Amino acid sequence: MSAMLDAQTTDDQDLLTARYGAADVPATGPVTDVIRALLAHRSVRGYLPTALPQGTVETLIAAAQSAATSSNMQYWSVVAVTDPATKALMAEVAGGQGHIRDCPLLLVFLADQSRLNRVITAAGKTMPTLDYQEAFTVAAIDAALAAQNATVAAESLGLGTVYIGALRNDPEKVAAAIGLPPHVMAVFGLCVGYPDLAKLSDIKPRLPQTSVLFHERYAPQDEAAQVARYDAALGAFSRKQGMATESWTGRVLQRLTGTNGREGMRAAMRRLGFELK
Amino acid sequence: MSAMLDAQTTDDQDLLTARYGAADVPATGPVTDVIRALLAHRSVRGYLPTALPQGTVETLIAAAQSAATSSNMQYWSVVAVTDPATKALMAEVAGGQGHIRDCPLLLVFLADQSRLNRVITAAGKTMPTLDYQEAFTVAAIDAALAAQNATVAAESLGLGTVYIGALRNDPEKVAAAIGLPPHVMAVFGLCVGYPDLAKLSDIKPRLPQTSVLFHERYAPQDEAAQVARYDAALGAFSRKQGMATESWTGRVLQRLTGTNGREGMRAAMRRLGFELK
Repeated sequence: MSAMLDAQTTDDQDLLTARYGAADVPATGPVTDVIRALLAHRSVRGYLPTALPQGTVETLIAAAQSAATSSNMQYWSVVAVTDPATKALMAEVAGGQGHIRDCPLLLVFLADQSRLNRVITAAGKTMPTLDYQEAFTVAAIDAALAAQNATVAAESLGLGTVYIGALRNDPEKVAAAIGLPPHVMAVFGLCVGYPDLAKLSDIKPRLPQTSVLFHERYAPQDEAAQVARYDAALGAFSRKQGMATESWTGRVLQRLTGTNGREGMRAAMRRLGFELK
Repeated sequence: MSAMLDAQTTDDQDLLTARYGAADVPATGPVTDVIRALLAHRSVRGYLPTALPQGTVETLIAAAQSAATSSNMQYWSVVAVTDPATKALMAEVAGGQGHIRDCPLLLVFLADQSRLNRVITAAGKTMPTLDYQEAFTVAAIDAALAAQNATVAAESLGLGTVYIGALRNDPEKVAAAIGLPPHVMAVFGLCVGYPDLAKLSDIKPRLPQTSVLFHERYAPQDEAAQVARYDAALGAFSRKQGMATESWTGRVLQRLTGTNGREGMRAAMRRLGFELK
């Protein structure tokens, strides 16, 4: 279906084994070509300089706009960035992620309350919901649903993507770089481009489905054993990819037991017009 | 590809015309079968009682877990609800949405910091990031990316879905109903089932792409005229669907100029263990 998929297996059980490890393949039901493509997803951090076909951005955003949006309010927007200087600035905000410079297209997805506020202001009314935590939550979810459709669409065209949550390292710098008005915030970026197949990683294992999916009630069982199996699976994957061998638990401890530099997020968001009451 | 899609057109230009109106069809590039399926999305609020094939939940969640997740932290979980009493309670929380009772499966997507906290606690450490706004943001986005993959997978199987953001009307009642521990919150539900094709709505128009997609910088141009065209397109759609004729602007004013009952979200979230510092 896509170049990425063609480069690897398309057999359901092989895909599930890559995703979960042989000991944790879930008992799935019917599977379609679309589902095979979803199972084969991997983030792409090595891009060819190849330009995108004319109209690609419009195609991806048509797919994105076709995703569900809360009460059809359409709380999101997107800025398509191709300018090398802007991409270089974004790469710097993101802690030096070179693929942001290398990819031909960076889509910056926005939680956008400002368009709704403009519509309401033009009608001579005010928007009290604007100032609440819920307003940001719904906008961030709307943006994520849209972005995932763009990702699925891109992969079907043989393109690769990687989400750049690290744009939230400095939301004010990002806002200034792309001219965001108040009540708009970049929630993440999405690099898009043709993958350098020589740098394509394998399918990354995830936690056993039994750690994530519960029936009727939230009730983890044997979680420690599942995490231990996952630590082993992710360690094996990392070794195969030539990355530093690291268990998931080790990575969790490394990332989440200290500060992450985003303790000022709430203050920054308030300065961007999200009161988060 | 899917029953939903088969029931309607699969021609690119027809799909784009349905989505944007004839005056606002964007100049898209190459389109794949997967993209046609995305463009054909509509939310389903009328379900047949037909049971899902064995293993369907596992298939959908395998697709969901294959979506990107921030730093591979996997900040989300999901509870698959089929129990009629629980679905009835969820329908009541959501303001009486009967399709929650009627669908065979309600997936409740969770922003889940508790699994990571258990892993960290078991290692004798603490998780300071847990208490910040950013922790919830990343979890909600992770959950949304996963859920959208589940939706795309479901539609490829001929199933329909509808997101239930209204579970956030009472996050504490939802948490009690499905046994959520602290640091976990239901961010939305997703109804899944076979659509009653007699009740299937047409493709809902969205804002012109020029209102949502910007190049290099956020710079709306002629937005008022675009919104006016969209008001007309959505009014025509509503009339055709036999719904009360209503412009988008009218709907925005109705929903967002008063209170929405979610002003207490921040306080409720703190009681659920999200400090949102």
